[in-house]
Amino acid sequence: MAESVYDDPFLKSLLMLIRAHDGSGAWETMPDEAILAPFIVTREQRREIPLIGDPDPDILWRVELYYAAIGLAIEQRSGHSAAPIMKIHHEGWGRMLLTAGRLVVVNSYLRDLHRFGFESVEAMSAKAAKIIDDAVAVIKRFPDVASAT
Amino acid sequence: MAESVYDDPFLKSLLMLIRAHDGSGAWETMPDEAILAPFIVTREQRREIPLIGDPDPDILWRVELYYAAIGLAIEQRSGHSAAPIMKIHHEGWGRMLLTAGRLVVVNSYLRDLHRFGFESVEAMSAKAAKIIDDAVAVIKRFPDVASAT
Repeated sequence: MAESVYDDPFLKSLLMLIRAHDGSGAWETMPDEAILAPFIVTREQRREIPLIGDPDPDILWRVELYYAAIGLAIEQRSGHSAAPIMKIHHEGWGRMLLTAGRLVVVNSYLRDLHRFGFESVEAMSAKAAKIIDDAVAVIKRFPDVASAT
Repeated sequence: MAESVYDDPFLKSLLMLIRAHDGSGAWETMPDEAILAPFIVTREQRREIPLIGDPDPDILWRVELYYAAIGLAIEQRSGHSAAPIMKIHHEGWGRMLLTAGRLVVVNSYLRDLHRFGFESVEAMSAKAAKIIDDAVAVIKRFPDVASAT
């Protein structure tokens, strides 16, 4: 069987988290691709989104889910749960941290969140993999800090 | 000369930060005690503040200033600057982190922020001193993490 991008544990977690918010039951049978469609914003689409006004609350919800799924993937890989804390200015920029014990495992500065999205599902998976790899590496480097309370 | 609680570097930083927000010039000549008065909430006053509705934005501003002054005191003592990130639910509970490099130096869970305040200036100074001491100790324990990027 050919490998599918949807075998990525990060994408599986993200789909699980999104479907967990399903109030209507409609997302249960919706294909994965349709569920992830709002995360895909091509370069051309991005250019058309103005950076004025406040970003849609749905976008901030997607940013939170994206990093929550990254946290779950870090936990699966390292055994350390990674708690998110996000501070976003209403104009669409801010900071996202994931911490394990006393260790900052992810430190992302976010901006232009009006345009939050990825070229493709593959690009989203690859970007998350890079963040997850870096986080797992920093936990390996400072394991006692990741366990410290 | 007798020691005054206002010799506390934390309180000096807090007063400096508050006065830095002074738009009218009125706080420049206002005595320290009057500037800090909104931070003092006695047990009796606390009981009278209902925990319904959203806390006043001025309270959240005071929480941010309180932890910003703690961050400055940590920097004075350890040489490591400590950046704050606060995430408060509008109903008045949340989390405040101060991070130095890859290290979480302060991790405070906040609740009932409607009632944020201290019995006295001395109590406020003592509580901050405890948080600062703990932060400086964790930096001494993991100096390489506090310097890691």
